[in-house]
Amino acid sequence: MAVTIKDIAKMAGVSITTVSRILNNKEGFISEATREKVLKIVKEQGYTPNSFARSLVTNQSRMLGLILPDIVNPYFPELYRACDDQAQEKGYTLLLCNSDDESEKVKGYMEFLARRGVDGILLASSGVSPKLEQIERLGVPIVTIDQYLEECSWHVGDIGNDNTYGVYLAVSHLIGRGHEKIGFLCGKEGTFTSKRRYQGYQQAMQEHGLAVQPELICFGEYQHRFGYQKTRELVRQGQSFTALCCMSDTVALGAMAALREEGIRVPKDCAVMGYDNTYISDLIEKPLSTINRFTTDMAKQGVQVLVDYIEGKNKEYVEKILKPTLVVRKTT
Amino acid sequence: MAVTIKDIAKMAGVSITTVSRILNNKEGFISEATREKVLKIVKEQGYTPNSFARSLVTNQSRMLGLILPDIVNPYFPELYRACDDQAQEKGYTLLLCNSDDESEKVKGYMEFLARRGVDGILLASSGVSPKLEQIERLGVPIVTIDQYLEECSWHVGDIGNDNTYGVYLAVSHLIGRGHEKIGFLCGKEGTFTSKRRYQGYQQAMQEHGLAVQPELICFGEYQHRFGYQKTRELVRQGQSFTALCCMSDTVALGAMAALREEGIRVPKDCAVMGYDNTYISDLIEKPLSTINRFTTDMAKQGVQVLVDYIEGKNKEYVEKILKPTLVVRKTT
Repeated sequence: MAVTIKDIAKMAGVSITTVSRILNNKEGFISEATREKVLKIVKEQGYTPNSFARSLVTNQSRMLGLILPDIVNPYFPELYRACDDQAQEKGYTLLLCNSDDESEKVKGYMEFLARRGVDGILLASSGVSPKLEQIERLGVPIVTIDQYLEECSWHVGDIGNDNTYGVYLAVSHLIGRGHEKIGFLCGKEGTFTSKRRYQGYQQAMQEHGLAVQPELICFGEYQHRFGYQKTRELVRQGQSFTALCCMSDTVALGAMAALREEGIRVPKDCAVMGYDNTYISDLIEKPLSTINRFTTDMAKQGVQVLVDYIEGKNKEYVEKILKPTLVVRKTT
Repeated sequence: MAVTIKDIAKMAGVSITTVSRILNNKEGFISEATREKVLKIVKEQGYTPNSFARSLVTNQSRMLGLILPDIVNPYFPELYRACDDQAQEKGYTLLLCNSDDESEKVKGYMEFLARRGVDGILLASSGVSPKLEQIERLGVPIVTIDQYLEECSWHVGDIGNDNTYGVYLAVSHLIGRGHEKIGFLCGKEGTFTSKRRYQGYQQAMQEHGLAVQPELICFGEYQHRFGYQKTRELVRQGQSFTALCCMSDTVALGAMAALREEGIRVPKDCAVMGYDNTYISDLIEKPLSTINRFTTDMAKQGVQVLVDYIEGKNKEYVEKILKPTLVVRKTT
């Protein structure tokens, strides 16, 4: 077993409080001789102060929580990695939680993180948002990364991405390539992000005098399975379309797998757009046209805003909406 | 601010110790009236016990650490996700650390996790191993997942994968397809895993009376950049080879990107094998032949062994070496 503060106190013949005071450089009636004796034993025993004890003293855990839907979707490892790097640079540890985009899990994780005593929470790109009363009860500051959250005093920052504009760019690009029947493969219906993205789709279509065909508008999830299944379904239903605008690179990969199986060539018979510009989009046989939403920038800024709030450097609500850009490769 | 144990004590007119004893169901001279009063206030205030305080009482943090090289390589999100799911099922939280396969970072994270008071550490598939003296000093039980660690009392379990056999399978498969000049794109030279994997390569070649050509043996890293750069280098040097045996699916993806650029067709001019059987290997235009190392199984068993040790259900060293299998798709 590792040496505890109790062991140190016993060896030095002093109380635990005395050892704790010495280790935390607290003032008090402690003689220099005792101080030296305790520090010598601490060094000899290779004792590392327990962070729980320290947290009780400082009332800061220097831990942050990050809640995202699922680390396996390649957009999220990039987001997590950038958050983690930035958190570390600021001296914080990041606790990662996979919500699977289920509201019960989001709720459970928020309570869990609060119990763990995190100093703040990052909520990232999830379709589900916690309820206000819940947030008030937790009393932990929250920064959202490309995610909707109702206005409340604990929502201290929002680093977003102009989702409407991003999809507008993608669909306008497809229309510019001559496409008129454009399938739209999006995340969960009715979420803030999905609504915004669908607005972008509608705007681009209307601006070019094109009708939105309801049978080509598909809501589901951001995973490759959805892209694969939905595309296969559209083809087998005999739907007529010449382009697919997918709301994640993985959905696009799934869509392309289905098109391949059905003997439909990309981009000759059907163009495919991704979203996220993950590293995989540039690595595959037919590199994917996609939308860059500057994942790393969003993550770093999100952590910065949260830490600034926690450390009292800024107590104002911060909102930053980044402009996505179009990346044209070989699938459009 | 959230309500603290101090606030509750003040409201109830009792000491913090009394509140703590009540919340932790400890025996003591506490009247039923006091108990009821305190619990009523706790409920009214929506107080959630702080995990730091609780940890000091139980001397268990119910946190585990997982150190892996880099979450962005798709093998690791799958590994992490499975570890996380299993840890949660057992009532533990997983702290994730990206070591970038640098020994200083591995060392730093181990100390950090010990200071955080984790109950145990999972070390996964990293080329670098911490030093024995370091582990002894930390006093935290460690389970390795497909990673080498010297024998020591804190190394309580090892869930591995027969790396020699995995590569032997891959190379034998390529030889069976008629290949004799087989490039080998591996991780860092000299690590335990790299040595084992190279042994598998040598065994398969020797068994079939084929000479190992040193100019086709390349050590580097498990990332796509390495696969891309090294393959381009081999081609431009004019090296003669008809197959590449890559030690991760991402390295294989990088290699295929380079072959494409150089006008070399897969598998017609050059066969390519991956390793890991990540989801991406089955999703790309030309699905990748690869080696399945049962990532999820390894992860789940690793967590199980660690938790069993922590909870005193098993104090014996546990070793399990899984047998990888060959997955043949379209690149060989």
